[in-house]
Amino acid sequence: MKFYDCATAPSPRRVRVFMAEKNIHIETIQVDLGSGEQFSDEFKAINPLMEVPVLQLDDGSSISQVNAICQYLEEIYPDNPLYGRTPMERALVDSANNRVNAGGFMAGAEALRNSAPGMKNRALPGPHNYSQIPELAARGLQRIDNCFSDLNAHFESNQYMVEDYFSVADISAMVFIDFAKWVKKRVPEDHTNLARWYAEVSQRPSAKA
Amino acid sequence: MKFYDCATAPSPRRVRVFMAEKNIHIETIQVDLGSGEQFSDEFKAINPLMEVPVLQLDDGSSISQVNAICQYLEEIYPDNPLYGRTPMERALVDSANNRVNAGGFMAGAEALRNSAPGMKNRALPGPHNYSQIPELAARGLQRIDNCFSDLNAHFESNQYMVEDYFSVADISAMVFIDFAKWVKKRVPEDHTNLARWYAEVSQRPSAKA
Repeated sequence: MKFYDCATAPSPRRVRVFMAEKNIHIETIQVDLGSGEQFSDEFKAINPLMEVPVLQLDDGSSISQVNAICQYLEEIYPDNPLYGRTPMERALVDSANNRVNAGGFMAGAEALRNSAPGMKNRALPGPHNYSQIPELAARGLQRIDNCFSDLNAHFESNQYMVEDYFSVADISAMVFIDFAKWVKKRVPEDHTNLARWYAEVSQRPSAKA
Repeated sequence: MKFYDCATAPSPRRVRVFMAEKNIHIETIQVDLGSGEQFSDEFKAINPLMEVPVLQLDDGSSISQVNAICQYLEEIYPDNPLYGRTPMERALVDSANNRVNAGGFMAGAEALRNSAPGMKNRALPGPHNYSQIPELAARGLQRIDNCFSDLNAHFESNQYMVEDYFSVADISAMVFIDFAKWVKKRVPEDHTNLARWYAEVSQRPSAKA
């Protein structure tokens, strides 16, 4: 297998941290998003969506999108499950993971892509160009604040995103917090529950991935 | 178990069609979104996100969000799998499902929620209020057109969203096409591949759910 990565980008980092937690080692190829390598014909043949991460199997077929890749890896490397250990836990993990993805990660992307000078017509990833909407950048920042506040309330009575079980949803949330720094948003000092959780997950060796 | 539904809303319909395909019958409770029943203290106790669908288990615990509910039902009712039959197929289904959710369903919600007079400060679902952004309504319509066009290209060489396997991603895509009618978007006549697939999935008995 080959893992198409970009060392500086948050989405592929979610997969890298996931692999580090499960001690999975896969040949990794860097795609230079800065110079637009994802738009090359060569890369489009691997992923027509022109995004990283991508997991390419030995038969040449490819899996794109963070969650699909991680779920696949979870199935073929079942040790140390990160998607839950029971049907109910798996449902709660999926729900928490979707929630932080939609309410956090996508908010960060909304804020960044609608304001960065280098992303003028790239307000959304993927094969279509969309113009920036300045009001949407502002809304993204507002949503990040709300997500921080929701997470802080959650961690008042939960060790992790799903009770006391460290899961893929914690990885998504941690990468979101780090991604939010790109648009100058940091966990406010009075969000002590969120800060406690963030310090804990950031100290795991996998966080360096 | 109890299923909290709203007969007229697209998100819970995705679960209803899923259950119909798998011949699952669960006591169903209608939540009147029109009169704001989702904001009541009674419903907030069931789902703090104030959204349907919700699946409530017999022990009182709840699962929210379409995908988490369907995945849970898939696990406890494994017959006629709709999430894939192999690890690779499950990855492709998840990827296709996420793609149509982000590129189609969310586009429809973007168009509707940023323009409907009754949704002035409800441009996003969930516990926080956000003002409408007219440019975002316009972008939603543009994204629906692009999603139609991408799906039409896909169905030129695929019977279903994942090759010749009918899956939960086809349910998501069908409900998206019907949801798009709310903002007056219909499959263009020259999108013959998409029209062929849509006619086929719409004729399944589950489509009436």
